[in-house]
Amino acid sequence: MRVTYHPIGSIHSPFKDLKDMPIQPTGQASAPGIAEVLPEFAEGLKDLEGFSHVILLYHLHAVRRVDLTVTPFIDSEVRGVFATRAPTRPNPIGLSIVELVRVEGNRLYLGNVDILDGTPLLDIKPYVPEFDQPEAARAGWLEARRGQVRSVKSDERFS
Amino acid sequence: MRVTYHPIGSIHSPFKDLKDMPIQPTGQASAPGIAEVLPEFAEGLKDLEGFSHVILLYHLHAVRRVDLTVTPFIDSEVRGVFATRAPTRPNPIGLSIVELVRVEGNRLYLGNVDILDGTPLLDIKPYVPEFDQPEAARAGWLEARRGQVRSVKSDERFS
Repeated sequence: MRVTYHPIGSIHSPFKDLKDMPIQPTGQASAPGIAEVLPEFAEGLKDLEGFSHVILLYHLHAVRRVDLTVTPFIDSEVRGVFATRAPTRPNPIGLSIVELVRVEGNRLYLGNVDILDGTPLLDIKPYVPEFDQPEAARAGWLEARRGQVRSVKSDERFS
Repeated sequence: MRVTYHPIGSIHSPFKDLKDMPIQPTGQASAPGIAEVLPEFAEGLKDLEGFSHVILLYHLHAVRRVDLTVTPFIDSEVRGVFATRAPTRPNPIGLSIVELVRVEGNRLYLGNVDILDGTPLLDIKPYVPEFDQPEAARAGWLEARRGQVRSVKSDERFS
């Protein structure tokens, strides 16, 4: 079975290279960016203003391979790829929860992105705490390394 | 531009019909389910045990149309589709954050799913509070209706 999607727009950011990027929107190195949808989809952005955060789904277009096991940026052990956020996934779909600053026409101004410039955008969903914020979540192997998330940057390992 | 993915497995649930489903995993009507990956991807599940929650991305295969504006289950006003979680999106990718009970071989046993039986699975990501839990999030038009999320069920409007 094959699933085919068409990007609804693209993401603009200061990050032109997979190296030296923030590894998540919450990283210190993250920067403002823009999600721009094609004019024909602008109507779908109605009512998004008022949400403080949005979930972006995007195609990790610069990733060229699949690794079922990876060594994450903030660990030194080999982990199953589905237990990490590494981009070398069987279906390279990226997910970021980012601050929505304002909406202007077909553009979302975002407070903090960790996304490569020119990335094809697949979907935008409103972030809703009642749906998306489980209480007392436990982060497995990442528990011991949660504090490092904000400071670690990417290197070339997934290029 | 076209983006093509191949499902990594599928989701098993008690929900055989788009009607009378929970509208989110946190709804009262949600039920245990299983995410089963194809045997060749089982290695990628390593280390997922220990995470209390996972993010599932899946293809909303039963949805047959796109609506840029929709009337959500828990509202009576027409909203832009990207300001809702309605399935009639330009790229019908579903996202649920669900409780991970245990991992057995190529199967994840899930505490609470809101997903149609037989849904093609695209990706599994660990839920990490540092990445995925913004503080003081504000839910736009949904703010006034947040309490209804747990009790409302689906009907036939997106079938």
